Amino acid sequence: MPVGLKTLPPLHPVAGIRLGTTSAGIKKPGRRDLVIIEICAGAGVAAVFTQNAFRAAPVTVARAHLTSAPARLLLINTGNANAGTGVQGLNDAHRCCEALARLASCSEQEVLPFSTGVIGEPLPVAKIVEGLPAAYANLSVTGWHDAAHGIMTTDTVAKGASRQLKVMGTLITVTGIAKGSGMIRPDMATMLAYIATDAALSRDVLQQCLNEAVKVSFNRISVDGDTSTNDACLLIATGQSGLASIDSTAHPAYGDLLRVISEVCAELAQAIVRDGEGATKFITLEISGGASEAECDAVAYSIAHSPLVKTAFFASDPNWGRILAAIGRAGIAALDIEGVTLHLDDVCIVRNGARAPDYTEQQGQQVMRRADITVKVDLGRGAHDATVWTCDFSYDYVRINAEYRS
Amino acid sequence: MPVGLKTLPPLHPVAGIRLGTTSAGIKKPGRRDLVIIEICAGAGVAAVFTQNAFRAAPVTVARAHLTSAPARLLLINTGNANAGTGVQGLNDAHRCCEALARLASCSEQEVLPFSTGVIGEPLPVAKIVEGLPAAYANLSVTGWHDAAHGIMTTDTVAKGASRQLKVMGTLITVTGIAKGSGMIRPDMATMLAYIATDAALSRDVLQQCLNEAVKVSFNRISVDGDTSTNDACLLIATGQSGLASIDSTAHPAYGDLLRVISEVCAELAQAIVRDGEGATKFITLEISGGASEAECDAVAYSIAHSPLVKTAFFASDPNWGRILAAIGRAGIAALDIEGVTLHLDDVCIVRNGARAPDYTEQQGQQVMRRADITVKVDLGRGAHDATVWTCDFSYDYVRINAEYRS
Repeated sequence: MPVGLKTLPPLHPVAGIRLGTTSAGIKKPGRRDLVIIEICAGAGVAAVFTQNAFRAAPVTVARAHLTSAPARLLLINTGNANAGTGVQGLNDAHRCCEALARLASCSEQEVLPFSTGVIGEPLPVAKIVEGLPAAYANLSVTGWHDAAHGIMTTDTVAKGASRQLKVMGTLITVTGIAKGSGMIRPDMATMLAYIATDAALSRDVLQQCLNEAVKVSFNRISVDGDTSTNDACLLIATGQSGLASIDSTAHPAYGDLLRVISEVCAELAQAIVRDGEGATKFITLEISGGASEAECDAVAYSIAHSPLVKTAFFASDPNWGRILAAIGRAGIAALDIEGVTLHLDDVCIVRNGARAPDYTEQQGQQVMRRADITVKVDLGRGAHDATVWTCDFSYDYVRINAEYRS
Repeated sequence: MPVGLKTLPPLHPVAGIRLGTTSAGIKKPGRRDLVIIEICAGAGVAAVFTQNAFRAAPVTVARAHLTSAPARLLLINTGNANAGTGVQGLNDAHRCCEALARLASCSEQEVLPFSTGVIGEPLPVAKIVEGLPAAYANLSVTGWHDAAHGIMTTDTVAKGASRQLKVMGTLITVTGIAKGSGMIRPDMATMLAYIATDAALSRDVLQQCLNEAVKVSFNRISVDGDTSTNDACLLIATGQSGLASIDSTAHPAYGDLLRVISEVCAELAQAIVRDGEGATKFITLEISGGASEAECDAVAYSIAHSPLVKTAFFASDPNWGRILAAIGRAGIAALDIEGVTLHLDDVCIVRNGARAPDYTEQQGQQVMRRADITVKVDLGRGAHDATVWTCDFSYDYVRINAEYRS
């Protein structure tokens, strides 16, 4: 059960983007597992990919294609990650791109492949190739909902976010979808996410916009500390809104657009955590008073990755000693624990490094029973801060990941 | 159920060491929870403590006492960690030391306090002080077994190891006990472990011997990546064997003694992992072919701390893609995945960064069903290696840690 996630919100079409979805029977029959996203001519595409050294074959191919031709089609399959598959995996990714290119009468380099699912098994190329015509035939500007479902793996709900804003009198749309639930600790990249806008941005500005948005959204979440081999996040600017191209970050519209794109990314990123494998709690970690942002990050991730903290949240147990232990092992040089303050929501639990005199166990339990909880740590040694979103650790996380391949 | 752990082996007495145990009712009545270890005059004591910034009060007091007087008595309680307790915690630790010092007619500085258990609750000083006479009255050279039981918390079995060796014609004994099961990722220190020998070693040599032994034992294990606030490991050299003092690491006997002490430490360290909370598998991670020991360590801990790898081991699922993903996210600069080889025991699964052509799922499953499994990763880029011991991640880990305080 995702934590506080509503059903998929309305997703506004983005002029210049069409999406098609089908069931190719890649892992299981009858499940939507193949998605094509068509991008109009003249659109710009920026991307960030996983930093994992074991990059999946489609990541390698997509990166190469992106530098050699304008992207016209995204080909996404679930049920198989095509990772750890060596030379055969690269050939398989190319064969899928070729098949779609033939169908669309474009070059193979204009197709970017994306795969997600089990690692280490050969990609079922024949099934994907057979499924392409059906997906291609139902390409539609209103295909966002189906596509959001078509990229799911262990996700229990589809994830999408959409915003509209007026820029200099022109209505601009930003719509995105994402998938992810486990193996989530994006690092300079993310799971799979596709965000499109009908604004126009020049190449460098588009990439910078994506980098900035990812930094405050997908790079702020962790379910289990594991970074996927297949992570990718794309930002597409079709330029079909009629608004002139934004060619500089100093452009008066850049700030507004960046804010809205960041909001869409953050909504998608939080949806991934809210649907984290087995999650029953959504935890916001707000670390302040750090001497640097890096040390705030270190404290946040030390808490976010502590199985002891995460199981305590699952149990609704205000076992704040585990949070202190996680802060203490974050490797902060010369941390004076007497300067540390800890709040759960508005309840002050630790002051001057020890239990606050007025804190009662009952107060802690009251907060812990909530589904959305904010942990606030003030390190008391500087002006920097950082926010990370994570979830708890339940029996279901173990069940989902013990049974994943069966 | 501990993995492949036999019952406590025979623990040879160490001349100059007496141990006393009692039930003080600190957390629950009727449980052995208070241990005193008496050290003869003239013995040397070396120690390593947790690197966690939130050091528990007893750690702070024990460190201070150790530098100001020769240690004569160790006072260990379970059921309460006296951590996150601020100034009151320090006062409480001092009061316990004072009470034992009065009983033994020594100075407070000659008593070292150790606590383990729940973090953040006030130490029940009265119960401890009331329990001291009973524990003091049953001090005995054969008290090792009872003491091994008396320091347990979530441990399901008592942990001890003992060796004897002949050095220059003199029989030398090394005996140690340890406790630990969760919050285990010692970093320059460990859970609680007490090792004694009747050999004599000068102060610096004794400390170096402990450092070297800990490096290849307690610092090579991880249950859940969490470092305790209360870790401590002591090595006591009573000098009562009659063998002249070892005053230099160049002494001909130093190497033999270090080897045996390291063996005792490694046996205790592995026992902690075998009794890891909820563990059903004991995993040895052997990383070789690294350009440095540090990068081998990084790969080993990336695997050891991956909840996805650990749940796959629990499920006996040879989902080796998760191991590749963990290697890939270890942050090794310019890792050429085509040089990477992966074995589970003697089965080669990955060669040149992809599935070995002759590997079958059946082979992987056969290894995965074993309780003791070695993961061998050859990075193919150097001559360095590292070994780390860890365990799997089960429903019981979640249960134990969700219910810990209830």
